[in-house]
Amino acid sequence: MGKMKVGICQMIVKEDKDENIKRASNMIRNAASNGSDIIVLPEMFNCPYENKYFPMYAEEFPGKTTNTLARLSKELGVYIVGGSIPEKDNNIIYNTSYIYNREGNLVGKHRKVHLFDIQVENGIKFKESDTLGYGKEVTVFPTEFCKIGVAICYDMRFPELIRLMALEGAEVIIVPAAFNMTTGPAHWELLVRTRALDNQVYFIAASPARNQSASYHAYGHSSVVNPWGTVISEADEKECIIYGDIDLELVQRVRRELPLLNHRRTDLYEINKIR
Amino acid sequence: MGKMKVGICQMIVKEDKDENIKRASNMIRNAASNGSDIIVLPEMFNCPYENKYFPMYAEEFPGKTTNTLARLSKELGVYIVGGSIPEKDNNIIYNTSYIYNREGNLVGKHRKVHLFDIQVENGIKFKESDTLGYGKEVTVFPTEFCKIGVAICYDMRFPELIRLMALEGAEVIIVPAAFNMTTGPAHWELLVRTRALDNQVYFIAASPARNQSASYHAYGHSSVVNPWGTVISEADEKECIIYGDIDLELVQRVRRELPLLNHRRTDLYEINKIR
Repeated sequence: MGKMKVGICQMIVKEDKDENIKRASNMIRNAASNGSDIIVLPEMFNCPYENKYFPMYAEEFPGKTTNTLARLSKELGVYIVGGSIPEKDNNIIYNTSYIYNREGNLVGKHRKVHLFDIQVENGIKFKESDTLGYGKEVTVFPTEFCKIGVAICYDMRFPELIRLMALEGAEVIIVPAAFNMTTGPAHWELLVRTRALDNQVYFIAASPARNQSASYHAYGHSSVVNPWGTVISEADEKECIIYGDIDLELVQRVRRELPLLNHRRTDLYEINKIR
Repeated sequence: MGKMKVGICQMIVKEDKDENIKRASNMIRNAASNGSDIIVLPEMFNCPYENKYFPMYAEEFPGKTTNTLARLSKELGVYIVGGSIPEKDNNIIYNTSYIYNREGNLVGKHRKVHLFDIQVENGIKFKESDTLGYGKEVTVFPTEFCKIGVAICYDMRFPELIRLMALEGAEVIIVPAAFNMTTGPAHWELLVRTRALDNQVYFIAASPARNQSASYHAYGHSSVVNPWGTVISEADEKECIIYGDIDLELVQRVRRELPLLNHRRTDLYEINKIR
């Protein structure tokens, strides 16, 4: 149980929901046929990343997209961390990741906790909170390998959230994300590597491929980082599937050799979950 | 008051306390003559970084080393963040940074909070807690420019401590440090950049120069990083003084454009200082 293979589907997302679902399905089948235990999709994989599309593409649970993920995970016997989709619940739309186990059962759901409201001079402007509601949960789900945490994109800017997952026992953290051409080159590698290193976890970040005809240009560069902070697998910006071999013995070894989690001065500070 | 200049003295540390103090003094004079407002020395600047030397070089306060720093800061009219020295207090030795203002008054003192006990296979082994006692305080001191936080080396591995400083209002964080040839190439740049970025502060890390005749080979690479996570000044491994121009308006601008500190979900989690 100490080793597992993760496949990241860095897919192109277009202005056609059915086509996006079909494309994701094909890539999932491909990743499964190559021996993936866990298959990860990017943020907003069924919907262009633009505020005006979120209400149009949103679906209630269960819906067309989640039913497809459930069916595929059972048929292929794989875990699927379903990137994220716009979820509609009581007239609020969330940026939500649905997580299925090998039997096709929903084992976790993460609603993006930190919404992306940013306005960089001569760079990216975006305000998710215009259309989206806020998640309220730290998401960690169990597998036969280890516990796995899930967050979405801007969530990974917040060391508190990632730390809370590690303290809840996550040894792998998976983040569907869509950084852009301002923040991607500046911060993407820095963040994925440091979150892995600080928390002594495998950190897996799944981006859409860059679609030059979309209004939002994703950075791509889906990555798998080991608990020493080393990138072991990385995409460029194009559509592709990348794989990473996760060795949970390395998590234990790094935690033994450089015992950061044990050396936290919990007599002086603590991160508390409020709810 | 929005701009200040920092000078980092990346000095060689040798097995001669008086020579180390003299060398530091000369570099401080040099940095002051080049217009530094704040001058930073490296970790254990008066003592080789080796457990056996800490008791031999330790001094009670006030002592030879701190008296020199006090005298120089007043004479030159500069702030001095005095790297660190082995401090003896009630028969416990601490790894301590003394901080003097332009009038030669002690305005802060940081005792290393996280002790460096590490044992990497085929890499670095060190156990500070064999000889050193644990600090218990988060250290932030006021200046006419802004509040400045101080931590020491391994302390910067812990995002909680750095975050607490930012939450206490620090806009600049200064870390005398001595990473080694295992952890330096692997993690130094990653950590100094991410701590700056996450906390939207200038992050200033001061290393000794690499002394190949010492048992502990410091990585060097003293750095100044801006709040966007960009390295604006960096040394190689040799003895040198590097300078960084700190623009506090950039701190405000980055915090406005990418409002990470405001976007923390303090309704879901909080970092609490326990003491």
